[in-house]
Amino acid sequence: MSEYQETIFSKIIAGEIPCHKLYEDEHVLSFLDIGPLSEGHTLVIPKENARYLHELSEPAAAALGAVLPRLCRAVLKVSGAESYNVLVNTGEPAGQVVMHVHVHIIPQFPDSGLKKSWKAGSLDDATAQRLSKQICAHLDE
Amino acid sequence: MSEYQETIFSKIIAGEIPCHKLYEDEHVLSFLDIGPLSEGHTLVIPKENARYLHELSEPAAAALGAVLPRLCRAVLKVSGAESYNVLVNTGEPAGQVVMHVHVHIIPQFPDSGLKKSWKAGSLDDATAQRLSKQICAHLDE
Repeated sequence: MSEYQETIFSKIIAGEIPCHKLYEDEHVLSFLDIGPLSEGHTLVIPKENARYLHELSEPAAAALGAVLPRLCRAVLKVSGAESYNVLVNTGEPAGQVVMHVHVHIIPQFPDSGLKKSWKAGSLDDATAQRLSKQICAHLDE
Repeated sequence: MSEYQETIFSKIIAGEIPCHKLYEDEHVLSFLDIGPLSEGHTLVIPKENARYLHELSEPAAAALGAVLPRLCRAVLKVSGAESYNVLVNTGEPAGQVVMHVHVHIIPQFPDSGLKKSWKAGSLDDATAQRLSKQICAHLDE
């Protein structure tokens, strides 16, 4: 477990920094990203102070998941987008900048600031057996 | 609400097609992606038949969220990655291929098959006021 250090998001939760708030409940806060990749780019964060998704408690993660469909519906309606990406970057090499778990809802338009390239490999049976066995073992820990 | 049509994932849930299973509970199934972007690339799907995240029920979305931290911990341990992306592509233009909600857990390595470019814009105050007002109104519907 890494140690959480105050971030801009914990200050927003504490009300020390303003945000363009969209939604709030006991566990979750949602607001507009101030560096949007497209119109309607929204952030959803847990109030629990966790740096990384894998360090988030199960109840906080459930609350975060629960509100996503409703938020996505509203963001789609208002942005006019028909498709979108929901993205959590975890760790600097994966693109995480603020070290407080946050979910991006990024409406997709031809001129969106998010571009992805997707180069799928293949999965041979021996690797699949090994990985699934090991992952299942860790899940049981 | 779009009409769900049978997919490879609903067939996996029904046990008609095999998968390299990692986790299963009442609401959720997780298995290895057979077209991995990196070692340990994992899929997490709701058993509820929903094409898009914004059409998923709140309980199913909560269950999906709840299991993510635990799965991410196991995938990190086994893959040896220290960072990762969690990604839901919704709609074909956003990269969705199978029309059943699915969450990708993609361990990040220098040679991963997922590349992103992130071109952030800015958010002026008038736009922010308009968007937040409209999104909040839709959330109340």
